[in-house]
Amino acid sequence: MRNCGFDVDFTPKDMQELAETAKLCRGDILKMTTLAGSGHPGGSMSSIDMYLTVYRYANITPENVKSPSRDRVFVSHGHTSPGVYSALARNGFFDIDQAVAEFRLAGSIYEGHIERMVNGVEWTTGNLGQGLSAACGAAMAGEIAGEEFSVFCFMGDGEQQKGQQAEARRFAAMHGLNNITAFIDYNKLQISGNIEDVMYQNIKDDYTADGWFVITVDGHDFEKLFTAIKYGQKIEQPVLILAETVMSKGVSFMENIHGYHGKPLTDEQLDKALAELGLENDIARYREMRKAFVFDPSHHELEIPEVKVAYDRNKEYGLDVKTDCRSAFGDAIYDIVKNSQEEGMTPVAVFDCDLASSVKTDKVEKEFPDNFVQAGIQEHHACVAGGSASVNGVLAFFADFGVFGVDEVYNQQRLNDINGASLKTVTTHIGIDVGEDGKTHQCIDYLGTLRNLFGFRVIIPADPNQTYKAVGFAAENPGNFLVGMGRSKLAVIADGDKPFFGKGYDFKYGQVDVLRDGDFAIATYGSMTARALKVAEILEKQGIKAAVLNCSCPLHPDMEAFEKYTDKPVFVYEDHNEFTGLAATLANKFADDGEPVRIVRFGVRGYAFSGTPEDIFKLLGLDPETVAESIKAELA
Amino acid sequence: MRNCGFDVDFTPKDMQELAETAKLCRGDILKMTTLAGSGHPGGSMSSIDMYLTVYRYANITPENVKSPSRDRVFVSHGHTSPGVYSALARNGFFDIDQAVAEFRLAGSIYEGHIERMVNGVEWTTGNLGQGLSAACGAAMAGEIAGEEFSVFCFMGDGEQQKGQQAEARRFAAMHGLNNITAFIDYNKLQISGNIEDVMYQNIKDDYTADGWFVITVDGHDFEKLFTAIKYGQKIEQPVLILAETVMSKGVSFMENIHGYHGKPLTDEQLDKALAELGLENDIARYREMRKAFVFDPSHHELEIPEVKVAYDRNKEYGLDVKTDCRSAFGDAIYDIVKNSQEEGMTPVAVFDCDLASSVKTDKVEKEFPDNFVQAGIQEHHACVAGGSASVNGVLAFFADFGVFGVDEVYNQQRLNDINGASLKTVTTHIGIDVGEDGKTHQCIDYLGTLRNLFGFRVIIPADPNQTYKAVGFAAENPGNFLVGMGRSKLAVIADGDKPFFGKGYDFKYGQVDVLRDGDFAIATYGSMTARALKVAEILEKQGIKAAVLNCSCPLHPDMEAFEKYTDKPVFVYEDHNEFTGLAATLANKFADDGEPVRIVRFGVRGYAFSGTPEDIFKLLGLDPETVAESIKAELA
Repeated sequence: MRNCGFDVDFTPKDMQELAETAKLCRGDILKMTTLAGSGHPGGSMSSIDMYLTVYRYANITPENVKSPSRDRVFVSHGHTSPGVYSALARNGFFDIDQAVAEFRLAGSIYEGHIERMVNGVEWTTGNLGQGLSAACGAAMAGEIAGEEFSVFCFMGDGEQQKGQQAEARRFAAMHGLNNITAFIDYNKLQISGNIEDVMYQNIKDDYTADGWFVITVDGHDFEKLFTAIKYGQKIEQPVLILAETVMSKGVSFMENIHGYHGKPLTDEQLDKALAELGLENDIARYREMRKAFVFDPSHHELEIPEVKVAYDRNKEYGLDVKTDCRSAFGDAIYDIVKNSQEEGMTPVAVFDCDLASSVKTDKVEKEFPDNFVQAGIQEHHACVAGGSASVNGVLAFFADFGVFGVDEVYNQQRLNDINGASLKTVTTHIGIDVGEDGKTHQCIDYLGTLRNLFGFRVIIPADPNQTYKAVGFAAENPGNFLVGMGRSKLAVIADGDKPFFGKGYDFKYGQVDVLRDGDFAIATYGSMTARALKVAEILEKQGIKAAVLNCSCPLHPDMEAFEKYTDKPVFVYEDHNEFTGLAATLANKFADDGEPVRIVRFGVRGYAFSGTPEDIFKLLGLDPETVAESIKAELA
Repeated sequence: MRNCGFDVDFTPKDMQELAETAKLCRGDILKMTTLAGSGHPGGSMSSIDMYLTVYRYANITPENVKSPSRDRVFVSHGHTSPGVYSALARNGFFDIDQAVAEFRLAGSIYEGHIERMVNGVEWTTGNLGQGLSAACGAAMAGEIAGEEFSVFCFMGDGEQQKGQQAEARRFAAMHGLNNITAFIDYNKLQISGNIEDVMYQNIKDDYTADGWFVITVDGHDFEKLFTAIKYGQKIEQPVLILAETVMSKGVSFMENIHGYHGKPLTDEQLDKALAELGLENDIARYREMRKAFVFDPSHHELEIPEVKVAYDRNKEYGLDVKTDCRSAFGDAIYDIVKNSQEEGMTPVAVFDCDLASSVKTDKVEKEFPDNFVQAGIQEHHACVAGGSASVNGVLAFFADFGVFGVDEVYNQQRLNDINGASLKTVTTHIGIDVGEDGKTHQCIDYLGTLRNLFGFRVIIPADPNQTYKAVGFAAENPGNFLVGMGRSKLAVIADGDKPFFGKGYDFKYGQVDVLRDGDFAIATYGSMTARALKVAEILEKQGIKAAVLNCSCPLHPDMEAFEKYTDKPVFVYEDHNEFTGLAATLANKFADDGEPVRIVRFGVRGYAFSGTPEDIFKLLGLDPETVAESIKAELA
């Protein structure tokens, strides 16, 4: 049985102290928003009594805030940051004065939406509808890592409209995440007015239909809140506490006015409100503190957990092997999961979206079901849950097709990245190489999209050997990675009579592999590398010597490799949108130096067709024969 | 009352003909998948009886397929393309032999997932969970345009896990889209096995909770299907027909085997299956036809509807006006909607996600509620519904914040683009300019993401005058647009003593506006244009003459404007990720020509802070003073 801070009695002293703190917090909320001239007092004041009740009893304190076994508190409606900051500060997590004075001040960590660098904040939120997924990810990670803790998740009512909520609900029910207690701040107001006027909602029935136990309670009555939580902790279902609340609760002239969702009080109104709360108006003091703020970038650093991972560093697929990179990924993930069963290794969670047999995680599913997490056709949820799991005690993988693991969840990946998560996304079926499924399934924008995310690293290996090593590298290095590959079987890239990326090959991020030297460069990666070698062969027969540069890290290639080839055009050959792929990376790099290098693109110029990759490449003029011909013409 | 093809009696002749056609279709499905060596027979065979029932009675025929008043049939589980093609062909929409022979052949329109260029296909689907949104968009468009038709939407059961389904359900109930009849092919199998083993689902209760009327029926009994649809057409709620079906129905050895979700029969198995169906095995003939296929790109062209729009071409905000571009958008959309009330103009639908007062569509909401579509906090749904509406008789706008209208719905925008939709997305609150809401809300990747979408055009106007004209331009020109703007008030850009973009200014896509001439170029756009002018002023005082080039179409700037400045570095000043914004466009363009132009970037280099835009820009070294200093140092 997990540690449960609610296994006590609620006393009059509790009631008195909570009420007293709540009053102070309401003052903090009003002061910080007025001081900043922006922010969200309304929801902060309707949620604050719940925040205080949970922080008082849950097993999370300033002392254990880094402990793997602490309870987790997620706040999905991150715009209630004033409420969260005041609740955390009044529970000793940091200095309340600093939070009030610095709220929404450029360079401070007390940002407009809660961020993970603030002590006690588990997850950066703000884009609505994602917090419950993050809570599920932590709960799942705890289960896999063998840690017993409770997970609390606070949400707004308006955000229940987001579809991702439904995905998270089903996931929690499916996996029996009964240690989750979620709360909805049911103040019934959203920006445009009453939630039921804005959009049809039937919150209670939605949760019930999706397998949750729902308790309705007065969200401003500490004792009832406590009792509901305590009761819920014994229920063998995920529990929703639907807390009936009042927007801007506690200040008479603000209550139930939806305008206060995102509008602070004026100085005069603040004075009046603080008087009603019986609090001193000390905003002048905070104003002075605010002026004295000094920016310290180190406060914004996020800790990424170290992991311990083992895989076969001498793995080699021989030259006679013809397999797909997906299968090499399957081998790598299997080895990593298998080795993780040993003492001292980081436990692994492999998130799947109903594609295990295609993305080759099915062997893990079968042999290590505890490490395999079925998320259904619910990519938004899976991506966030995976991101959250990755900073909650497990090494997390998210395996999917390219369009689902990148395109469909672009914003979820962005928020994972902002969170400093360490999710290892592996997408099979990228590029035209996905073939017959057609344009809706052809992910030809993984570089163009992920180039926007400052922390992301992308690896597109050239063959099964490089795939295996790349997966190992991504697993053992902190941060968010995409390892991407196509669907087809690929020849093992050779270095004379042995594999190029076989025994003795260590993957280094950014390294450009010169697979053959020549008078000018063909830059390529992934499933096009083998084709580029074919181009070079064809050209060689005509006396033209092409170097083939395999750029398996196409967002961050080591540019030194290009230095000797810049007097001729650089030919870029890629199974990617040609405006946003490796060619764009190189154009950016050359422009930084003002290098007069012409880039000739052989990539995808429009939404393509449904057919075999070979046939499509031919139609697009991207088959090796046509490319060789074009290069010859360019050089003539 | 709308035209309802089901207002007839079901006769034994109907039954006999449907059964006969269904047998032929099952043969078609099996032949085309075996011929292609890939595809999805299982779901096609469980859905086919429903397809045939609807196409027999619904008011959609080869003759009226372009009529605005036709019934619409959407198929969300687009991988059942063999079923859809056979049903359409057997109802006369095109030649069945061609569809069978060309299925999944590179260059053919009979792609792996259904696509809109096929006669009778209303919407390209394949990424699951989007079809119901598209159906809602068409229904909404019909309501606004005053067309009375029924909308049928077929879906898979596995895809019910996607959160977007819940968004679409609520939207349909909220807006009383009672002309929607949706079907779920409830064969209970998805790729990983039984749907209830893969993910918790409670389809019936989910739909009921969200305001739908649910009818459960045998999905292979034509008469019961007919009766259910007929009954449903009278219900004053959106109706779900939960059709109990059998995967691969009709061929004994394939039934209920989930492997046939995505696996065709071998030649031998096909022979056996066709024998069981009592059909001739004429696959050899199809094989010959397939070999003779000739690619014709014109078959892939999509019609984009023309619109008739009116706005004030002489609109001008004077030099004394200080307003935000949002308000100029508000004026433009108001004028467009107001003028659309006149006879002969295209009706307008403005999709909102609970942000009308922030994105300034609130005046439309108030005065023209029939043209305003509240979609709640359900961006995925809103984006697809808007895309679908845009090709179903209305001019459709989707107004939102940047991170919600671009980042969160990137894949939905991608599929809109593949569909050749004509959605006008207008995002306010882009860039650091969104300020205090912090990094989760700072959309600094709208160019980096949308550059991947081949059909998209992006306009980021520099001031209120240009905003008004840009919105008008996007409205009246076919195709998908993003018009993006920040949150802050901006000075009107001047040309001497009059507005630069005022009376007499016509917006031209791609045009680069030389706001002042000089010895080298500062390229900029949007809210940075005014700051760039300030940089130029500062530099001028020091005897340095900077040209300021306003690139309001930063994905496609007319490069002629840069020709005279390429002997010096080009300085790019943008409120955007500096690796993926205008600087990246220019780097791409210069690399195409091998131009030795150095690009110096003043853009965003990492996730930023929460604070006033001015404060944040200062912290990032992007305030005009710092930029001027850096330029001076670079030129020295």
